[in-house]
Amino acid sequence: MTIVEFDTIERLLRDEDLAGVTSVLSTMSVAEILAAMRRLRSNRQALLYRLLDKDVAMAVFERLAPAVQTELVAGLRDEELVSLVEDLDPDDRVLLFDELPAQVADRLLHGLSPQERRLTTPMLGYPQGSTGRRMSPEYVRVKPTMTVAETLDRVRRVGSDVETVYTLMVTDEVRHLVGVVALDDVVLASESTPIGEIYRETASVTAISNAEDAARLCADLRAIALPVVDSEQRLIGILSIDDALTILEDAESEDAARAGGAEPLRRPYLSTPIHRLVRARTVWLLVLAVSAMLTVGVLERFEATLGEAVVLALFIPLLTGIGGNTGSQAASTLTRALAVADVRPADIGRVVMREAQVGLTMGAVLGALGWCIATPIYGVDIGNIIALTLLSVCTIAAVVGGAMPLLAKTLRVDPAVFSTPFISTFCDATGLLIYFTIASAILGLGSGS
Amino acid sequence: MTIVEFDTIERLLRDEDLAGVTSVLSTMSVAEILAAMRRLRSNRQALLYRLLDKDVAMAVFERLAPAVQTELVAGLRDEELVSLVEDLDPDDRVLLFDELPAQVADRLLHGLSPQERRLTTPMLGYPQGSTGRRMSPEYVRVKPTMTVAETLDRVRRVGSDVETVYTLMVTDEVRHLVGVVALDDVVLASESTPIGEIYRETASVTAISNAEDAARLCADLRAIALPVVDSEQRLIGILSIDDALTILEDAESEDAARAGGAEPLRRPYLSTPIHRLVRARTVWLLVLAVSAMLTVGVLERFEATLGEAVVLALFIPLLTGIGGNTGSQAASTLTRALAVADVRPADIGRVVMREAQVGLTMGAVLGALGWCIATPIYGVDIGNIIALTLLSVCTIAAVVGGAMPLLAKTLRVDPAVFSTPFISTFCDATGLLIYFTIASAILGLGSGS
Repeated sequence: MTIVEFDTIERLLRDEDLAGVTSVLSTMSVAEILAAMRRLRSNRQALLYRLLDKDVAMAVFERLAPAVQTELVAGLRDEELVSLVEDLDPDDRVLLFDELPAQVADRLLHGLSPQERRLTTPMLGYPQGSTGRRMSPEYVRVKPTMTVAETLDRVRRVGSDVETVYTLMVTDEVRHLVGVVALDDVVLASESTPIGEIYRETASVTAISNAEDAARLCADLRAIALPVVDSEQRLIGILSIDDALTILEDAESEDAARAGGAEPLRRPYLSTPIHRLVRARTVWLLVLAVSAMLTVGVLERFEATLGEAVVLALFIPLLTGIGGNTGSQAASTLTRALAVADVRPADIGRVVMREAQVGLTMGAVLGALGWCIATPIYGVDIGNIIALTLLSVCTIAAVVGGAMPLLAKTLRVDPAVFSTPFISTFCDATGLLIYFTIASAILGLGSGS
Repeated sequence: MTIVEFDTIERLLRDEDLAGVTSVLSTMSVAEILAAMRRLRSNRQALLYRLLDKDVAMAVFERLAPAVQTELVAGLRDEELVSLVEDLDPDDRVLLFDELPAQVADRLLHGLSPQERRLTTPMLGYPQGSTGRRMSPEYVRVKPTMTVAETLDRVRRVGSDVETVYTLMVTDEVRHLVGVVALDDVVLASESTPIGEIYRETASVTAISNAEDAARLCADLRAIALPVVDSEQRLIGILSIDDALTILEDAESEDAARAGGAEPLRRPYLSTPIHRLVRARTVWLLVLAVSAMLTVGVLERFEATLGEAVVLALFIPLLTGIGGNTGSQAASTLTRALAVADVRPADIGRVVMREAQVGLTMGAVLGALGWCIATPIYGVDIGNIIALTLLSVCTIAAVVGGAMPLLAKTLRVDPAVFSTPFISTFCDATGLLIYFTIASAILGLGSGS
């Protein structure tokens, strides 16, 4: 979509020239319409959505954020809503139900055709965040004894109703997962070949596994579909790469937001109302402000020292800044390493050893540099204080920053939550304590109160 | 892979029990071997790699980071190297060539079979970071006039040599891209149907386009393969979802590293030598330390003010901390919004307006809170100073933090580079200037030197 096209749509919507909008929309692809929707305020999103052709509307709806879906749904007549929900894929339907008031979701569930209700109800039984809620119960299942010709027949018969035909699930008579067979291998084999000769073994996930971990596995294996099984290895669904990518994108948006100290926005930036932007950030900032009070407490303890040597105040932002940055460097490195499974929580010993070495080295470099800059201007005492403080602060910050994400993961808290802002505050308070302790010792001053 | 398996491998490698390692390896999947490789130091990685079966070694090699590949290559005999490079996919080969010394790459290029060299040479002509260097020149091409039966014949004939057969490229007689046809639509159609009736139009990218943008488009469209064309819309390759995901994962690792103020590691954390970890972080930290000197300069200007009212020093870390966090919240929100194309650089006006409102609101909330806490303890003057400073700092930090990523994108610099650390430092210096200016005015003190 060109910027011109979007500006045209926005102008036509503002002028309420609905015929004009409809004619522009008819020339746009689903991706272009989605891009336009992402940039509109919510009342205009609803207006635009109502102007879409039914099939296009369905394709657009499936790709919208659940928060936006809920708003659009609120504007639909009851029969429109029932038919929309009936047409959704079961996994998208479950996600929408999670957003809707329980009563509405319940009414919609009972309004479904028996076939669609049979697919949806079991998924609603799995816990939020589990693979079972995000899987697709519609897939092609074949037996090892079937031939290639029989398999292609089945694909042709059920192919248009399932999530994907590129990966077919191979099971035994009691639905136990045996493996998968790729459609290209089926097409390349001769018609009489039994599936038992061309299938391969596969990784699988259980329905109660964490959906994000399952999605990561699916993407890492570059699998078009990953089988989802119950506790007895019986096949109950598939996680497609499409859905895996959606799960990972949401997880990455969440990580990025939390690393910056905000809750993730549940809808595109430009269509998020200001008060929601504020709310996403204020809660975090209040938590941080309260913990920043710690730094006031630490400094208060050393107020007398500060009074005797005001020059010490000059270096406060520099030292806390470097400490905070060292800590967040380590935290973001380890958060990412955990996310891509390069490191596991059990590696904490190795990580602490490595970060201690990294922190010491960096502290030595920065300390030497600080000494050389500070000594000629402020004297050798201040030079020594700066150098020793940098050495200690860098080491502690790197170790704590590196260890925190692993501890968070062990405690089943989001590692990104422990990242930048939390570590900065921790390093600020600790850094100040170290700074003034060293300064008091070297300058021979009283330690305050 | 269980932790026990990895520990076994590490112990066997340490004991140089190569037969033992080989027997454990024979029970492991490629994904498990990759997971083990990621956790080993580089000399052991090379040892493990040499023990792999040839086919497995190839599959493992393709998925390793280019920096690790280069090290492994250094340990191979010449004829082993030539045969390895011959077996690589052209796009993986181009990536490896970029890492190797130019002489070695050149020698290897000339050692290729004429067919493979014909595929590789044009790709090397595209600029680094372009789609042309990451595309696959091996795909299935069909004409609109071909029937389904003819198409399936062609798939069976060339299917095992191409990147994917799930998306077939449809071109006219002069190789102009017409559209794509999905293998499932081919399989589901009757044998005599011409492709002209079942193909659909498609998005495409040019070979000189930015590879990351192309990968994002491929993933957004959930396309198994995106056609790559030259300036005259002639098909020259495809970007597969596999390769798109690799490009996006690398880009996300880079963003995550830079948001934390470090250069991305080019290999897994646990197998990165300590001195490389230090180097990835020190350069950034030095840049930040130098700019943190700014804060020393600002404070020096106000040293006299500080001497008259030491109590002002108590709030320095709190104010700079809140300013820095507000800035990095806005920066990370906008960096993410840019990455997922929710916002474009041209939206800077809207973004500044929104962030000014968000910053003012947050500043008002935090300022009111600060006033209520500070006034009873330190008096109404200090309360007013804190409240006014928080209001100004939050507004400026949100606006600057929000605008920076968009400016960076306009200047074609990585927006993540401008994120957290840069903004923190900027906000520290500006925040201090505002703080002492307000304090001097309210307390009626001299503004220092």
